[in-house]
Order: sequence, then structure tokens, then C-alpha cells
Amino acid sequence: MLNLYFDNAATSFPKPPEVAEYTRLYLEKGGTYGRGAYDRVINVSRTVEETRFLLSQLMGTSLSENVLFTHNSTHAINIVLQGFRYKFKRVLISPLEHNAVTRPIEHLREKIGLKFDVIPHKSDGQISLEELGQLDLNRYDLCIINHISNVNGVIQPICKVKQVIGNLPLLVDASQSAGYFELEADKWNVDFMALTAHKGLMGPTGVGCLFIRNTELVSPLMFGGTGSRSDSFLMPEHLPDRYEPGTPNILGIYGLNGALKANVDFGFTRNDFKGLLSDIERLNTIKVYRSKSFENQGFVFSITSNNLSSSDLADILFRKYKIETRSGLHCSPLAHQTLGTMPQGTVRFSLSKYHSPNDLSYIYKALNEIDYEQGG
Amino acid sequence: MLNLYFDNAATSFPKPPEVAEYTRLYLEKGGTYGRGAYDRVINVSRTVEETRFLLSQLMGTSLSENVLFTHNSTHAINIVLQGFRYKFKRVLISPLEHNAVTRPIEHLREKIGLKFDVIPHKSDGQISLEELGQLDLNRYDLCIINHISNVNGVIQPICKVKQVIGNLPLLVDASQSAGYFELEADKWNVDFMALTAHKGLMGPTGVGCLFIRNTELVSPLMFGGTGSRSDSFLMPEHLPDRYEPGTPNILGIYGLNGALKANVDFGFTRNDFKGLLSDIERLNTIKVYRSKSFENQGFVFSITSNNLSSSDLADILFRKYKIETRSGLHCSPLAHQTLGTMPQGTVRFSLSKYHSPNDLSYIYKALNEIDYEQGG
Repeated sequence: MLNLYFDNAATSFPKPPEVAEYTRLYLEKGGTYGRGAYDRVINVSRTVEETRFLLSQLMGTSLSENVLFTHNSTHAINIVLQGFRYKFKRVLISPLEHNAVTRPIEHLREKIGLKFDVIPHKSDGQISLEELGQLDLNRYDLCIINHISNVNGVIQPICKVKQVIGNLPLLVDASQSAGYFELEADKWNVDFMALTAHKGLMGPTGVGCLFIRNTELVSPLMFGGTGSRSDSFLMPEHLPDRYEPGTPNILGIYGLNGALKANVDFGFTRNDFKGLLSDIERLNTIKVYRSKSFENQGFVFSITSNNLSSSDLADILFRKYKIETRSGLHCSPLAHQTLGTMPQGTVRFSLSKYHSPNDLSYIYKALNEIDYEQGG
Repeated sequence: MLNLYFDNAATSFPKPPEVAEYTRLYLEKGGTYGRGAYDRVINVSRTVEETRFLLSQLMGTSLSENVLFTHNSTHAINIVLQGFRYKFKRVLISPLEHNAVTRPIEHLREKIGLKFDVIPHKSDGQISLEELGQLDLNRYDLCIINHISNVNGVIQPICKVKQVIGNLPLLVDASQSAGYFELEADKWNVDFMALTAHKGLMGPTGVGCLFIRNTELVSPLMFGGTGSRSDSFLMPEHLPDRYEPGTPNILGIYGLNGALKANVDFGFTRNDFKGLLSDIERLNTIKVYRSKSFENQGFVFSITSNNLSSSDLADILFRKYKIETRSGLHCSPLAHQTLGTMPQGTVRFSLSKYHSPNDLSYIYKALNEIDYEQGG
């Protein structure tokens, strides 16, 4: 049976069976996180900390305690952007940022006069490392890079960016890369990394994660009970408590634990994917938005039709072909400005490890028919 | 079989079977929230909005869109306290507040010089309405009341408090009352109400909720994609999007939907509970912390032993009797200051609707034995 769900950049589906298994396990056994005089709490806390460790491995850092649970990527990014101790009140951002970055920046522009500059780039949004190196980097507090665009799938060269910007702190939004590509927070010397469980990691919603290398750079965003230093009205200084007030999403963390242990393999090859993109690009009435070089291509891409609006195209794909995509701006107006697809946006396809070569071929067949009907 | 889990004020257990059923349903069907060109999104969005409506009914408000999903109560309270437009920089708080309130206030003291006064009260922490009425209420921006104490279970008279304070905005922390007692946000004319799914509502972790009557009073705490007005770097003004950036905890919301539909009845009567408290109070070496009048008593109470530390007492209860309680400060140092139980705290018992009269009797039997051994 074909898997025609291509909205995995929003929320992945299906999930590995381990997600349901581990959430059921938690609901059966119960218990809370933190200190307690009984075994149930100890078991839950062990699983939460094991999940934190598995996440730290996935992110490529040896600093497991610096991996903090959040509600989602947006929450993780807000902790960094709102808690950062700005000196110059100016940040550098990639040309393909999501509103999870641009909206907090707009808020900080109103609140403290924060300014942002967009990193020089190619027409597909790929950062120009050469031009980045020519900027006066001493004017900036922070550099923010969307590792993989949620619109056209361009992969940014995080390691090289960090080499160029040197001591300038770097926040990487790994929402679209986690689960699909290796992350190397330590090797790349990344200062902050945000991600979420419910996309490429194939875990549940309601669990995000933030890696903070140096906590002196960032104040907490929220304050509350931590089950530690409870005699004090101050948040504890130690990790992870400093950034995790209130009861964490234990159920979600169990689900993520299952997802991380599932370790699903890709059902298709890079070549299958490359072939699909090449095939679609040959259609006359359809334009593909992707990385100019396939090696920098994540498992997300967008298309537009010469004749159909993006919402009509997505509607035909679903009504006639049962293909589930997403049309519009994908919460990334800056990316669409960069790509020249404002205001109508694109139809986005985002792949899952569970897709097969047949699923990919089916996309092409559908688009080929639509192209033919549109006079292509 | 006895149910000896008495830590429901931390996280309720067991959950109604509907929680597992609805979370499984979501994991089987998948999909995301918001706009999308396919049915899966529409079904998910319908369930999320139905849950919002069920919550609004539970909270006693007709303003369903003003009911916002959060990560937990702490998150909900932080939205109000950090987003509030302070004029006098002074708030009134109940004497039994949790660190979810006192820690954000301490942060705001450092940041903007916010001051707080504790409402005059009886020795059990019950607010003195008469003395409250004698305060110069025009000096305050906001009044914050923990509806039911998570330490001794005192129920505060929200409706009467609001009658006394008039136009002074009122934030009610209903974390310990939701699911156990009727909430009447509209009738009581409450301005803000915070709660969480995983305690008395018997839903999952990772889902809290904030009711905001007048959104002009409070700026958002976080910023990001909402799937609406995606062309703009500004958060949309409309509800609920204004306060719900990023992907919500859909899995958790499904679980909460199941919990709200389960509508579990109490397995014991108020009289059973009253009897238990009276019985324990007759023990010589044990002191009970509860409301002076039983009608103002929630399903939480605390004890201390004349001879044993709270952690030792909790440990004996678990090791010898398999009774799961929580010892210490329960993240509420202010409450323990009020009750005179700093710094060693108390052993807390918190009941579930699933408890039976036998479960309650068993607590008494265990404490009676311990009392006897301690020379009581």
C-alpha cells in the first residue's frame, strides 16, 4: 500500500510502533519526574534522563545535562532569543528562517531595538561563506541558521559557518534535520541547537529540545517549581532544572524515548530522491524549489504551477491523488521573499524514512498527469 | 486491590482508559493542527477545538477561544505574570502560593522592581476577606490566588475574593482544583485561570491551559509560527493563535479529550474523607495540616510526625506500607512559611477520584501503627 503522506515537515506520520508502545507503558505505570520517596518516581526520572542522554548523542554532544526539554522548537528558540544577553543588539540570520525565529526577532525589535541582517546568499538561499567572511562580524551578538529549510530543503554548512564566524555564538535550528542527517553539536562547535520530537525524529508532539553549551549567555524564559532548591524563590542554577520549570511532558518524553530507540532506516535511497526531483523538473508547467546542488538537499522541496495557485494544486493532489502536501507560506515569509514565491507560496512535499521508491514514483505520476492537463 | 498512590497532586494515577485510547487513536491516524489541504488536518483541528470547548465548559466560561493551550500550569502562569502590563508594579498574592507564582515574581522583582504583598489570612492560610477589604486595593495591578493549596488543601473563596477586590484583575491557579471541584470563571468573574491536564483532570502531561478574559491586559510570552497570517513577522492578534506559537501538543490534547469525556465519578464520599482526617487527627505523634473548616478542604492534606522527619516518615510509608506520598516542600516555600513547616516540610497525601473508602482506611491503619511504634 502506498504511503502518500508528504507533510512530514509539519508532523511526521506514521510513527514507529515504539512510540505507541512507550506512551502506553507510561500510562500503565504512571508516576512523576524528580524527587519522590517511591520507586515509580525513580523509574520515570531514569527514563527521562535516559531520553536526555539519547538526545545528546543524537545531537552530537557529550554535555547531556545541557540538553533541555521544551514544548517544541519554537519554545527552544524563544529561550535563546529572548534570554540572550545582547550587547550590540544586532543578529545575523540565514535567508531561509522560519517565523519561529523572525517573529521573536520582530518582538525584540519593538522591545529593545534588536536589528537583524540577512546573510548574503545564492538564489536558492544557500549561504555564501565567502561573503559571510567579509562582513564585520564584531557588530553582531548572535548568528542564527536554519540547518535545513522547511520550504526548499536547502542544507546550510553549519560547520563551515562556525569556522567563518569564530567566536560569534551560533544558534542552529535543527527542526528539519534531526532524524534525517547527522548532527554534530560538539564537532561543529555549535553554541545552541533547537529541535523537536515530532518531525524527523518521528516522536510525539509536545516535546522539543534545546542544547545550550554555555548557560551564562542565556537567562531562563520561564520560572517555577523544579522539585529542587524548593526553599528558594530563585530558579536553581544547575542544569537541567534552570530551564525546566513545572512538570515536563513525561508522556511525550517516553514516546520520544521509543522513537529514538526505534532507529528506523530509510526506505528509499538518495538516488531515488534525486531521480524524483529530476523527473519533476522536466515537467513544463511545474517549477521546483530546491537546492542548486543535490548534495545540499534535505528531504523537503517545494513546487509551483504556472497555471494553478498553490492551494488549488495541493487540493487537486489530495482530491484526485490522495497525496497529502501543504500549500502556502509554511510559516516562513522570509524564505519565500528569498525565493521569490511571495505571496502565493508553494506546494511543499516533505518525506519520511518510511517512504518507498514506489511512493516517490507516484508523486511523479500524479504531477505528470496534472502537467499534461495543464498543457505541459 | 488497594490503590495506594497518594501523589495525585503531582501527577494523577491511574488515568481513565480513555486517555490511552485517544492517544493511541491519534498515533494511529496522525496529522497536524491548523491549515492543510487534506482531511487529516481537518480531523485533528476539530479534535483540538473540541477539547478547547470541553475545557471552556469545565472552566465555566462561554469564551472558548480565550482558552489557550500551554505546556503546563507554570507556563500558563508565566504568560500572565510576565506579559502583564504593570502600572503600580505591585501584586497581591495568597499566603499559599506555589513557586510557579513566587519564582516568576522574584524574577520580576529583579527585572522591573515588582513587589508583592501577602493577603492577610488565618493560620491555615485561609484568606481573611474582611482584612482583604480593608487594604488599599488601588495600589495593586493584579491579585493571584491559589484556588486550592497543594500543601494543606485549603480552598480559597474565589467568588467572594473577586467581589471584594472589584476591578482589580484576578489570576486563579486552579491546578489543584480542576477535576475535583466546579470552576465558574464567568460567574466568579475571574480574569485569568491557569490549570494543567495531568493532575485532577487525569489527563496526560505536557498540556496546560490558560483562560484570559481580556487579552489587552497581557502580551504573549513566546513568538513563532501559527499557521495564520504567515506573511507577517507579527503574531496574529486573534485568539487562540496570539498565544499559541509552534506546534501544540496534539497527542496530549487528544489524551486530555479522552480524560474530559471519561467523566470519572468519585469512588469515596466527602464523609469518608472527613472521617479519615478526624481519625488521623486523634493520633498523638502526628499533626495534620488541613483547612480549619472541612467545607473548605480540598483532596490534599499534609502531616508531620513529632519524632520522624518528613522524608523518613514518607520512606516508612512506602517501604513498609507501599503507600506513595511526597515529602518536603512541594515547591511551595511560601505555604510552608505560612504554616510554620519550614524547612523540613510535610508528608503530603493527595487523593484521586479512583480511591475507595478502603484505600482511605488503609492510610489510617498505617499511620496508627506508625504512631503506636513512635509511642503515641
